[in-house]
Amino acid sequence: MATELYDLTVPVFTRSLKALSGLLDKAVAHAGEAGAEALLSNRLIEDMHPLSKQVQIACDSAKLCVARLSGAEAPVNEDVETTIAELKARIAATLDFLASVPRTAIDGQEDREVVLKFPGGEWPFKGQAYVTGFALPNFFFHVTTAYGLLRQAGVPLGKRDFMGVPQ
Amino acid sequence: MATELYDLTVPVFTRSLKALSGLLDKAVAHAGEAGAEALLSNRLIEDMHPLSKQVQIACDSAKLCVARLSGAEAPVNEDVETTIAELKARIAATLDFLASVPRTAIDGQEDREVVLKFPGGEWPFKGQAYVTGFALPNFFFHVTTAYGLLRQAGVPLGKRDFMGVPQ
Repeated sequence: MATELYDLTVPVFTRSLKALSGLLDKAVAHAGEAGAEALLSNRLIEDMHPLSKQVQIACDSAKLCVARLSGAEAPVNEDVETTIAELKARIAATLDFLASVPRTAIDGQEDREVVLKFPGGEWPFKGQAYVTGFALPNFFFHVTTAYGLLRQAGVPLGKRDFMGVPQ
Repeated sequence: MATELYDLTVPVFTRSLKALSGLLDKAVAHAGEAGAEALLSNRLIEDMHPLSKQVQIACDSAKLCVARLSGAEAPVNEDVETTIAELKARIAATLDFLASVPRTAIDGQEDREVVLKFPGGEWPFKGQAYVTGFALPNFFFHVTTAYGLLRQAGVPLGKRDFMGVPQ
C-alpha cells in the first residue's frame, strides 16, 4: 500500500497538463485563434503573471519536479511562446519529457535532497515534502489561475475541463 | 518509503486551510473588516461561485475527503457564513475535524471504495485515485480561486501566503 512517488507526480501532472491544453482548445473554439491569443495577456491584476506565463509556469512546475526527483536533465525552455499553438507545443513537449522519465527513476526518492533557489535564499526539502508541500500546490495554483483567467474572459468551461481524465 | 495516505491528505489540507485563514486576515488588514466582507461576494465571472463559497467548498473538500477515506462522520455545515469571522470559524472547525481523525483510520485505505454523487450520476473511485485524481486538485482549485479573488481585489498577497508553512 501507500503511494509511490511516481504515482504522485507523473500521472497527476500528465492528466492536468492535457486538461490545460484542452482549455486552450476551448478558448480557440470560443473566440477563434486570434481572439484566444488576445486573452494570453490577461491577468487577474497587473502585478500577477498573464495567462501565457501561467501556462509556462505550470509546464515548468511539472518538468522541474520530475527532473529534480529523478535526476533527469530537464529540457530548457526560454518562455518565448506568444501564440496558442506555441503554448500547446510547450505543453506537448513537457508531456514528452514526463513520459521519458521511467518510474524507476522516481520511486524511492522520498528522501532525496531537493534545494529550491529563490531570490531571497534557498529552500531545502526532502523529495516527499517537496512534492506534497510545494510542487503539487504550486502546479495546481498555475493551472487553476489559467482556468480562472479563461473563465473570466467568458470561455465556456466547467470543472470537468479542469479535472481532465485519468491517465 | 512511499507516501502514506494520511500524509497525502491531513497535513496537506491543514497547511493550506491555515494559509487560507491567513489570506482572510490579510484581507481584513488591507481593507478593514467591512471592506473585507464586501469582497466575499466577488466572483471571477457571474456564473462562478463567490469568494465566500470558494472558502466553504475548500473546507468541504478537505472535510469530505478525510471523512470518505476514514469512515469518520463529517460535521454538517449549512454554508450560512456571511462574515470573515464566520468563515474563519468554519475553517477552524474543519481543522478541528481533520485533527480528530487518527492516522490509523486513513493509512491503508488506498483501495477503499469512494463513490461521489453528482447531479449527472455517480463517479466511483478507489481511495488513492480519489485523492490524487480528484480531492487534491479540487481542493487546490478552490484555495487558488479564493487567493485569486483577493489578489484581484488588491489585497497584498504573495505566493508564500498561498503556500503556507509545513505542518
